[in-house]
Amino acid sequence: MKTTLTEEKVFKDPVHKYIYVQDQLIWELINTREFQRLRRIRQLGTSFLTFHGAEHSRFNHSLGVYEVARKIISQFERSRYEQWNREDRMLVLCAALLHDLGHAPFSHSTERLFATDHEKWSCALITGETEVRRILAQVSPDFPEQVASVIAKNHPNQLLVSMVSSQLDADRMDYLLRDAYYTGVNYGTFDLERILRVIRPHEGHIVVKASGMHAVEDYLMSRYQMYWQVYLHPVTRSGEIVLRNIFRRAGELRQQSFAFPFLPAPLAAMLDGTLDVEYYVQLDEPLVQTTLQLWQTCDDKVLSDLCRRFHNRKLFKCVSARNLNSVRLNELAQMFDSLGIPAAYYLQSDDPGDQPYHEYRGGEAGQKLPIYILDENQTLAEISKVSEIVRSLSGMNQEKQPLLFYPADLLEERGIVNVEQWISGGGG
Amino acid sequence: MKTTLTEEKVFKDPVHKYIYVQDQLIWELINTREFQRLRRIRQLGTSFLTFHGAEHSRFNHSLGVYEVARKIISQFERSRYEQWNREDRMLVLCAALLHDLGHAPFSHSTERLFATDHEKWSCALITGETEVRRILAQVSPDFPEQVASVIAKNHPNQLLVSMVSSQLDADRMDYLLRDAYYTGVNYGTFDLERILRVIRPHEGHIVVKASGMHAVEDYLMSRYQMYWQVYLHPVTRSGEIVLRNIFRRAGELRQQSFAFPFLPAPLAAMLDGTLDVEYYVQLDEPLVQTTLQLWQTCDDKVLSDLCRRFHNRKLFKCVSARNLNSVRLNELAQMFDSLGIPAAYYLQSDDPGDQPYHEYRGGEAGQKLPIYILDENQTLAEISKVSEIVRSLSGMNQEKQPLLFYPADLLEERGIVNVEQWISGGGG
Amino acid sequence: MKTTLTEEKVFKDPVHKYIYVQDQLIWELINTREFQRLRRIRQLGTSFLTFHGAEHSRFNHSLGVYEVARKIISQFERSRYEQWNREDRMLVLCAALLHDLGHAPFSHSTERLFATDHEKWSCALITGETEVRRILAQVSPDFPEQVASVIAKNHPNQLLVSMVSSQLDADRMDYLLRDAYYTGVNYGTFDLERILRVIRPHEGHIVVKASGMHAVEDYLMSRYQMYWQVYLHPVTRSGEIVLRNIFRRAGELRQQSFAFPFLPAPLAAMLDGTLDVEYYVQLDEPLVQTTLQLWQTCDDKVLSDLCRRFHNRKLFKCVSARNLNSVRLNELAQMFDSLGIPAAYYLQSDDPGDQPYHEYRGGEAGQKLPIYILDENQTLAEISKVSEIVRSLSGMNQEKQPLLFYPADLLEERGIVNVEQWISGGGG
Amino acid sequence: MKTTLTEEKVFKDPVHKYIYVQDQLIWELINTREFQRLRRIRQLGTSFLTFHGAEHSRFNHSLGVYEVARKIISQFERSRYEQWNREDRMLVLCAALLHDLGHAPFSHSTERLFATDHEKWSCALITGETEVRRILAQVSPDFPEQVASVIAKNHPNQLLVSMVSSQLDADRMDYLLRDAYYTGVNYGTFDLERILRVIRPHEGHIVVKASGMHAVEDYLMSRYQMYWQVYLHPVTRSGEIVLRNIFRRAGELRQQSFAFPFLPAPLAAMLDGTLDVEYYVQLDEPLVQTTLQLWQTCDDKVLSDLCRRFHNRKLFKCVSARNLNSVRLNELAQMFDSLGIPAAYYLQSDDPGDQPYHEYRGGEAGQKLPIYILDENQTLAEISKVSEIVRSLSGMNQEKQPLLFYPADLLEERGIVNVEQWISGGGG
Repeated sequence: MKTTLTEEKVFKDPVHKYIYVQDQLIWELINTREFQRLRRIRQLGTSFLTFHGAEHSRFNHSLGVYEVARKIISQFERSRYEQWNREDRMLVLCAALLHDLGHAPFSHSTERLFATDHEKWSCALITGETEVRRILAQVSPDFPEQVASVIAKNHPNQLLVSMVSSQLDADRMDYLLRDAYYTGVNYGTFDLERILRVIRPHEGHIVVKASGMHAVEDYLMSRYQMYWQVYLHPVTRSGEIVLRNIFRRAGELRQQSFAFPFLPAPLAAMLDGTLDVEYYVQLDEPLVQTTLQLWQTCDDKVLSDLCRRFHNRKLFKCVSARNLNSVRLNELAQMFDSLGIPAAYYLQSDDPGDQPYHEYRGGEAGQKLPIYILDENQTLAEISKVSEIVRSLSGMNQEKQPLLFYPADLLEERGIVNVEQWISGGGG
Repeated sequence: MKTTLTEEKVFKDPVHKYIYVQDQLIWELINTREFQRLRRIRQLGTSFLTFHGAEHSRFNHSLGVYEVARKIISQFERSRYEQWNREDRMLVLCAALLHDLGHAPFSHSTERLFATDHEKWSCALITGETEVRRILAQVSPDFPEQVASVIAKNHPNQLLVSMVSSQLDADRMDYLLRDAYYTGVNYGTFDLERILRVIRPHEGHIVVKASGMHAVEDYLMSRYQMYWQVYLHPVTRSGEIVLRNIFRRAGELRQQSFAFPFLPAPLAAMLDGTLDVEYYVQLDEPLVQTTLQLWQTCDDKVLSDLCRRFHNRKLFKCVSARNLNSVRLNELAQMFDSLGIPAAYYLQSDDPGDQPYHEYRGGEAGQKLPIYILDENQTLAEISKVSEIVRSLSGMNQEKQPLLFYPADLLEERGIVNVEQWISGGGG
Repeated sequence: MKTTLTEEKVFKDPVHKYIYVQDQLIWELINTREFQRLRRIRQLGTSFLTFHGAEHSRFNHSLGVYEVARKIISQFERSRYEQWNREDRMLVLCAALLHDLGHAPFSHSTERLFATDHEKWSCALITGETEVRRILAQVSPDFPEQVASVIAKNHPNQLLVSMVSSQLDADRMDYLLRDAYYTGVNYGTFDLERILRVIRPHEGHIVVKASGMHAVEDYLMSRYQMYWQVYLHPVTRSGEIVLRNIFRRAGELRQQSFAFPFLPAPLAAMLDGTLDVEYYVQLDEPLVQTTLQLWQTCDDKVLSDLCRRFHNRKLFKCVSARNLNSVRLNELAQMFDSLGIPAAYYLQSDDPGDQPYHEYRGGEAGQKLPIYILDENQTLAEISKVSEIVRSLSGMNQEKQPLLFYPADLLEERGIVNVEQWISGGGG
Repeated sequence: MKTTLTEEKVFKDPVHKYIYVQDQLIWELINTREFQRLRRIRQLGTSFLTFHGAEHSRFNHSLGVYEVARKIISQFERSRYEQWNREDRMLVLCAALLHDLGHAPFSHSTERLFATDHEKWSCALITGETEVRRILAQVSPDFPEQVASVIAKNHPNQLLVSMVSSQLDADRMDYLLRDAYYTGVNYGTFDLERILRVIRPHEGHIVVKASGMHAVEDYLMSRYQMYWQVYLHPVTRSGEIVLRNIFRRAGELRQQSFAFPFLPAPLAAMLDGTLDVEYYVQLDEPLVQTTLQLWQTCDDKVLSDLCRRFHNRKLFKCVSARNLNSVRLNELAQMFDSLGIPAAYYLQSDDPGDQPYHEYRGGEAGQKLPIYILDENQTLAEISKVSEIVRSLSGMNQEKQPLLFYPADLLEERGIVNVEQWISGGGG
């Protein structure tokens, strides 16, 4: 196995120009039904409701992560770094390609509700009864497990882990460039080729040589900007909230044996918490979108209204909740209820604890492997120790911008025209 | 009505940087459920199976056509061309925005089978019982009809028609740039700003002043390249063929009262030829994709196999049919049938008469208003009369490249390994 | 005067796509000999020795500043901001176009030595006996003085001044984009169209509305990156130092009545400090480069050697001087002298006080008008008060990175091979 | 020799992102005074007078040609093409880097007058008493001659020649992309990476595999567009004509022992036809520009006027000469002479025989090695035999667009206002 293709295959890609496939194994993985399913999962969930260009899929991005990993390895091999073991090449390429395999439809809205943690499911699909596993197992019986362990971050060689999941990994390098390209914003455009040239393997880490620090600062600034301007955009958040409330309501109705006009088996399993690998592969965004379309006519008023909202993009409005304490919030909820607008589904303050994007945060340590700078004396320093700008970017993310989401149209129908004033307590 | 927005709204757009909305009417049209439906129709049908970047929607493109029309009008008004009537502004903007409203899911595969001609349906949605019609009617009772007549090309003022549908219209100018951007190819990148500067209204046409002829040549070369390299790509064609055969088979089964595992009402109406406006609005690509996913397990072997192929991108292979006459083709069909591979669904020669992309052709006259060059003496000439390169590009499109599509895997299972040789008559 | 051109003139420009000239006055100014001279002054001085792409001229940039000013005004007029007076349009356009008219050849190397402050000379050329003045005076007799006062920042209407010279002006907006384009770096690419949309005239300032703060942060980060990665690049600095030492030496020799093999009158006037407007117009970079080429064979060993270095890009090497105190620096100078390498011309520590680029610094107050954010309550705040990232960027610039420049080759010829070690005191 | 650098050097380049130098030899060649001189020769001669962005140098382009050659070789080596001999790598890289070494200042205006054929001089500099020769000779004593023979196209291995000088060579591939980038036009943007993938060495040629034909068509269309829209732009031609007439006049005056106010030795040698290698290296554009500036005040009215024109960009106007036969042209010349405007210097019809850009022509055979398409049966066909579009592009270039250049201002001073009408014989 690990056969080289007689002729390199290429995919035309707007971000990397071309994606080069040189190995039979990679080619076969791309052609599995599990990997093809990623064409039906959007890369940025509900962001397309804010940025109409953001319609690209996880398939699109996953090929890109593979390509960045291929470029990193190719740079390591051309530079003949001693700490890079050429035998790890295929393992890293597979982990890069497959790391998002387990994403659920609109995962930011559903992961918490239904325990569809995408990393866990990526591993499950890689090691379960799937085409992907069968292909990986051709390399060696434990190769699927090895690939999964790199993705799960518990592979003994943390260098491999950090190439796929760290503060400066193939995943982030691709998604910043790609999401910037498809949304059309300017922010994500750091110099990938230069980053590739200044990183190197060092004692189980990817480190950055000191003279490349400015290039990494630029990359981190890109991340900061993408985070605030794209990933956390209030309209995108509004879409996520509507969607989450749909699924929460559906889950409750399911427990009450509600007669859904349409409920395909994989979705039922999701609501019931009985998803298995086969059902998971069948879960995709067209299935969810079709279900929501058909639920518009169901007998539950809350569910049908929320589905109509998502389907036709009549989202919740959002205002700053900076001056809103929990007392006032409770009052508001009671007012909503008393107006016949159930606050449980129609009034949502954005709890930063709900923040699904912690991983985009500046240079925070902890769950993601940090970025190290390697100086001429071969000593390592965590980047925020040596870069004032990175320190500042990390601090920045602590800032809270609490928001309140609600359906302005329903309030208006009830005569509350100046909603913002009414919300802040001054009547409407 | 026709109120100006107090503050210009903008959409971030990767192709035009920003799309500017200055009118309340346009803003409301964008927010209708009929227009939002275009988010669920891909701009390039099955092209995403070839170019993974081509996942953008008709919504995306329709905003772009609107923006190009806005720019054309803005240039006309800044230049104070006498032949431009400022009162036609809103009519052209609406026609530009809405011209694709009636696209069916994967329209290139379904239009012929089910009479879902998108132009006709655009007009039906604009003048039928829709949110769009209600909003347009605020301008004047006959405004919806006027917008429809511009799209249907029978508006008395052919200048307005040619701004939206001609060889050099807002539609083409947007889609060449946009499709090139999302697929990542280099071809579609003509100089839009220069084109805008050299066109002007003249006796009911959009014409090009003589000194701008090279700019138009460049645009037409872009079109030629996009046509051959993107729109007619064999893999995209293969996807269309599989999809068309799915619907053809489903139509036949429907007539035999086949028990489909899932058949939502709008799709049933499509198969039955009883589509109305309401069902049409419900028809979208997630619905088709979900249906195909669920049909994978149906009792008809042909239908389930074809659905599996489309869903997992196991398409037909394609080879040149240049040396294949109808006698050999019949022989091939009999061989397929005798192998238990029904040729009616599994063997398809690409009849150029089936060509759904005639509109992309170079400078052909006829169904699309041609491009005129205006010289210093104010005389008009059709561009192919004065440009040798355009003449050459037009001729080019007569070239036939007949192809043959078939499932190589099924033949291989039956021991026919060297399919191409076998097809060309030499055994396998 | 102020006649509108019958047909808009356009310049093809890589940064703004096109530069639009709509006024006869602007067209005539561009065609003066003083403005055409800017084709012979590089925009980035010695940067082309570091970034080979940076060969663009002040002419190139000046058209760009004009175009950004035109876009700002056009946005102001479209938005009908009350605080913008349409009668100031031509004044701002002229000041934008002409603000760099007085740049000397390689100005960063010569301004301090020969009092060729470019702003002062821009005003001198605008109000002196020049084609530019004659054309401006057609508007009104005091119009040249008005244009000069905007450039000199003492015009009573500080709004006009801040459009041309402030922390967020047409000048910076063009040069960041332009210098990034020509050098090929990624850093300078902020979103100009968005900046244009969020700025507005307010009580004599250009201010930024609060919702646009992130866009301005992005612009300031671009500036920070361009500053460190391009404008202050050590190789560029090395070129400047060699050039300055050439002129310093030439000035001294001139006082000693040295027989230069070639000394054109304008250059003699510069060395003598007797420049007038006519000589100034004759001073350009080809003249300096030719002079340096011819001085390579002069009788003064220092001058000929330095000229050879600049002409053939055999610059000084540069090392960090972080650990170098003034005592050690004196020792080094003596060692240089004793080796027959006059330290006065061959050993240069980079005194930050010499820093010619203070204007590129983050958000510093003082000499340049600061950036104000305008919140919903119409109160102004200096941006570093409300943006942590800007505060951080401003602080950053206090950082010192002292460098030492010297001719490594001359030391090597004298057997000092390990120069860096030798410099830091450890012998070589 | 041929030592690999311990650390790859990179140049930031806007066109190829980075230029990678891996060999000590290449690094040393770049640092020679002969190669550094190319910084003082513009890539596009007088084009900067038309496109202000076109200020880039031959140095800039030469690095690019080297980089494209490096990429071609790298692709050949990765693909393990048998017909590529790895030992030829350094020879091709050196020829690519140095092929333009012998360009004279504004070569299109001076080559014919002073026999400064740049290819011949490139070879002379490579094999003469130069730093370049000394460095090349380290490889082997005959290596300079070998490099020269590749450039002179008489090396026995025509494959190497065709990599540097053919219809599809590293030179063209770089300059189309580069000139498009700096001028800012859209035309030159073909897909370099795809071209690299479809070319291969075959029997002493670079050939294109059949499936890559459309990519080459695209490249040739780019060339066609650049040719007509940029390289042959009338304003650029006007600049060349003024410059050529300056040198022609200066040559005549020199023969009459005219007392030039300034005449540096290399320029005197050029006028006298006695240029040698040392003088050639001293000839650069600043020297020419300075000379022209100083000649503005010389005693010859024609020379001083023409120099003033070039220096301040007061060029000749240009009109179509389509309807102008030689009789009328003679009449015009006499009228010019009688008005005191010597026709020999002030009236120039653009004789296509003078056309310096023949090499840009479509697919012409002959002096440049043609492009071959290699089909599946390994037979070669010249591209215009198989591509209708290429045939058409080649034909196109036969078209003549004769122009007439003259100083409109001088005629106007003499009361001839409507010059175009006067020229075409109708009085003014």
